[in-house]
Amino acid sequence: MIYGKVIGSVWATQKVEDLKGLKFLIVQHYSIKGDALNSFTVAVDAVGAGAGEMVLMAQGSSARQTPITKGKPVDAVIMAIVDKLEFEI
Amino acid sequence: MIYGKVIGSVWATQKVEDLKGLKFLIVQHYSIKGDALNSFTVAVDAVGAGAGEMVLMAQGSSARQTPITKGKPVDAVIMAIVDKLEFEI
Amino acid sequence: MIYGKVIGSVWATQKVEDLKGLKFLIVQHYSIKGDALNSFTVAVDAVGAGAGEMVLMAQGSSARQTPITKGKPVDAVIMAIVDKLEFEI
Amino acid sequence: MIYGKVIGSVWATQKVEDLKGLKFLIVQHYSIKGDALNSFTVAVDAVGAGAGEMVLMAQGSSARQTPITKGKPVDAVIMAIVDKLEFEI
Amino acid sequence: MIYGKVIGSVWATQKVEDLKGLKFLIVQHYSIKGDALNSFTVAVDAVGAGAGEMVLMAQGSSARQTPITKGKPVDAVIMAIVDKLEFEI
Repeated sequence: MIYGKVIGSVWATQKVEDLKGLKFLIVQHYSIKGDALNSFTVAVDAVGAGAGEMVLMAQGSSARQTPITKGKPVDAVIMAIVDKLEFEI
Repeated sequence: MIYGKVIGSVWATQKVEDLKGLKFLIVQHYSIKGDALNSFTVAVDAVGAGAGEMVLMAQGSSARQTPITKGKPVDAVIMAIVDKLEFEI
Repeated sequence: MIYGKVIGSVWATQKVEDLKGLKFLIVQHYSIKGDALNSFTVAVDAVGAGAGEMVLMAQGSSARQTPITKGKPVDAVIMAIVDKLEFEI
Repeated sequence: MIYGKVIGSVWATQKVEDLKGLKFLIVQHYSIKGDALNSFTVAVDAVGAGAGEMVLMAQGSSARQTPITKGKPVDAVIMAIVDKLEFEI
Repeated sequence: MIYGKVIGSVWATQKVEDLKGLKFLIVQHYSIKGDALNSFTVAVDAVGAGAGEMVLMAQGSSARQTPITKGKPVDAVIMAIVDKLEFEI
């Protein structure tokens, strides 16, 4: 999974029918050491994440393994809000 | 999902049978901050997107989760036309 | 999908049983603007593409969505021969 | 698969329901020659790997092919703890 | 598919149960022109490839489309041993 921060939202009225009602959030990728990276992914929110929160994102077909994304054209989902990281490099 | 702009189309008469009738659009990737990037993807249009429109694109098996791409050799689909982005970096 | 040019073939007698009879072509990736890129993919040909032809390639599980690649260990397929591109950057 | 070292853990109380009970470990990617690379992946542990251990990680839908990750929004799993590598470049 | 050379093996006693008995080989990626690249993938061998042999590797869910990798947490498989390449750039 990728670690990142929710930095905003995308609005799209004209979209594939069964995407209605999903929240599209913009996630800036972060390195594990806490550096903001210059890469971004638009992901569907499956856990009620808000702007500024650090999250985990699953991509590819794994993004469709939640009740709200099942069978939908979605390739990135926010599946956890991070409390803390502990690591030693 | 990837954010990008529709910049053109691809014509291909000789193609796998069940791709007939699908529109292949060229999407230039954009950073969330609005910079045009030097990477491009050819995607099937599932929402009636036109040249110059900003869109969201889903890739991989998720590209096959729309009525017109189901079961087809397609790995990128335009699934939303973006109204606006709001973000704070 | 990725845009590219067929530049050659790969021969492999010793291979997974159900790959017998498939044509493995070498595709050089091209930018939409027509620049040859320094990246290559070996793909199964599903449309009778020949050397020098510009093609579209689908990757990942989408590569298995053609009659000749279904259920096979193939992650890239040539699914269209390009007639022309039209775009405005 | 990717070769890497377990360097830490991620805690996330608020997450998709069926992820409860899974251990999220931080894996730093390593080159085969033993160089630590500047890329990291958060993966679910399926083999009881501990901090400092060298592991193999499978990604994408393959990450869901273990009893504890089946059907879950997980795109990376630790599926082996490496005893040794032997290679000649 | 990716073109590469088998340069070694990985031993891992502690692994997901149904991976027992599979051979994990280290594949160094090669450009089509024959240059060794600085990227490596650990792949399951499905064709009896040996050290020094040039091979083709399929990745992602396509890696699970062989009798020995079906349903297993494997995202890369060696599915062909290359006899020769012919190409014109």
